[in-house]
Amino acid sequence: MKAIIVQAEKEDRDLIYTDVEKPTLQSGEVLVKVAAAGVNRGDILQAAGHYPPPPGASEIMGLECAGTIVDAGDTNQQVGTEVACLLAGGGYGEYVEVPEGQLMPIPKGFSLSEAASVVEVACTVWSNLGMLAKVTEGQRVLIHGGSGGIGSFAIQLCKALGAEVAVTAGSQDKLDYCRNLGADILINYREEDYSEVLKNSCDVILDIMGAKYLRGNMRALANDGIQVGIGLQGGTKAEINLGLLLAKRLTIAGTTLRGRSLEDKAAICRDTITHVWPLLEDGQIRHHIYASYPIAEAAQAHRDLVSGEVTGKLVLEF
Amino acid sequence: MKAIIVQAEKEDRDLIYTDVEKPTLQSGEVLVKVAAAGVNRGDILQAAGHYPPPPGASEIMGLECAGTIVDAGDTNQQVGTEVACLLAGGGYGEYVEVPEGQLMPIPKGFSLSEAASVVEVACTVWSNLGMLAKVTEGQRVLIHGGSGGIGSFAIQLCKALGAEVAVTAGSQDKLDYCRNLGADILINYREEDYSEVLKNSCDVILDIMGAKYLRGNMRALANDGIQVGIGLQGGTKAEINLGLLLAKRLTIAGTTLRGRSLEDKAAICRDTITHVWPLLEDGQIRHHIYASYPIAEAAQAHRDLVSGEVTGKLVLEF
Repeated sequence: MKAIIVQAEKEDRDLIYTDVEKPTLQSGEVLVKVAAAGVNRGDILQAAGHYPPPPGASEIMGLECAGTIVDAGDTNQQVGTEVACLLAGGGYGEYVEVPEGQLMPIPKGFSLSEAASVVEVACTVWSNLGMLAKVTEGQRVLIHGGSGGIGSFAIQLCKALGAEVAVTAGSQDKLDYCRNLGADILINYREEDYSEVLKNSCDVILDIMGAKYLRGNMRALANDGIQVGIGLQGGTKAEINLGLLLAKRLTIAGTTLRGRSLEDKAAICRDTITHVWPLLEDGQIRHHIYASYPIAEAAQAHRDLVSGEVTGKLVLEF
Repeated sequence: MKAIIVQAEKEDRDLIYTDVEKPTLQSGEVLVKVAAAGVNRGDILQAAGHYPPPPGASEIMGLECAGTIVDAGDTNQQVGTEVACLLAGGGYGEYVEVPEGQLMPIPKGFSLSEAASVVEVACTVWSNLGMLAKVTEGQRVLIHGGSGGIGSFAIQLCKALGAEVAVTAGSQDKLDYCRNLGADILINYREEDYSEVLKNSCDVILDIMGAKYLRGNMRALANDGIQVGIGLQGGTKAEINLGLLLAKRLTIAGTTLRGRSLEDKAAICRDTITHVWPLLEDGQIRHHIYASYPIAEAAQAHRDLVSGEVTGKLVLEF
């Protein structure tokens, strides 16, 4: 079959579209013919050699896709069913093996490209803000990078949950985009110190910056506040003031989705279908594809995502 | 009335037993004639000027006591009732004003001295291990300083909850004491590196060391593990590796009890009565008074607690 792989021998680690072995199924897996795959920041890291797949996962990139079941293996799934899939890898291939617990229905009214690019963000945002931080009505939630794929989704989810949403972004255009999604407090981090503006006021922070923002985030958190970290764009090692952590009764948590057990992933998919799919289907969360590319042009999609100018999701189509 | 106060003008900040104003009641408070007060590490810090009472709280030390209600104020409490009390301060005085939500019954079979010295440890340990970390059967819990007041209580609570308990302590005598309380894994931190022995295996860590142990604790935690910090005996500022936090999906939390709102404290007292009082009354948690002192000898009690040789709680008696 055809797939995008990383030509790791070359110094610039090109993505190339080539022939590879078709995957074989293990117990509990189905084979899906991929129609579309979402592009994620984790793919960029993996292509650069910084985010190796977990043991046993496909060497092919791609953390989410949508397509059609062509082999149900030993499961009770039906061949021909269209599904969206949460993947540990393999979405950039023509076929991918998927554990049954990571199959999700196509949200009503969604195209396969839309479904393919909503799985990772929906499961990431829900598992962190819904299941871990337990965002509730009336809380103030700070979302860094509000105009990105994760940020756009998180703004709308938090508004649907009845929270007040503060965002940071680096330009007026991006802040306007966040305002249109429902964000209440807009902070241009190039012009203002968000930790001063929001001092001691945030119940929950969804962080993607890691080390660079830890101090500011702890300042912005209210008593009993929680930070959930899902990205390290500002580095990994920071000084933490544990005196402040105790005095304000803070919680600093971090997660990644891909390394979780099959049981965890299945539980997250179930909970996401229950709580998030209805919000997608009734339009409370709008899912925005910024651009689609033929699968052979994956390298261009990666370059565009790295550019930082993308507001919404990128999709590769077979 | 008589009370212990800190003579702050003197360089060595002596504790002196002297005459002070009797407290007046605010709405929702009762006046308790103190029979006994527990000695806590927070008292030592307060005496040294490092742990000032929260705004509005008594300047008199003492985070817990037991005694008799002598004025019910505008509450429905009964004068003459013996009670144990969680305090923001004031326990080292002959009388103390207590918010109604922080009154707790004397556990059946407990003396007033025993009750006076179990409140702070019970509420601290339950709010952290029961309510925040949600310790459950089969988990491995690491308790640093297992032979101290907090540690001894935490070992027994975790065993009652069905967890496996690992402890660190600095001598064989202290480890033997922990073993007698039910600890399963005993580590002398002077001889072994606990983070190597317990690498990637602890679901929950109750930490009192702060900065000094953060790196080791994060190494000892299993995937999805949580550290709850309640002390800073090893300093406040540490380097944190957020890459490891995300990769292992860790949670680092910290709390103090005294700064919480009245509502929070009332909720913690209720939950502690529900879940911990039965364990005290049926002997699953044995509460050990190491030594009692007349109130006038509070300074000696403080010196003894600082010595590090205490296994169990110290009590001041009126």
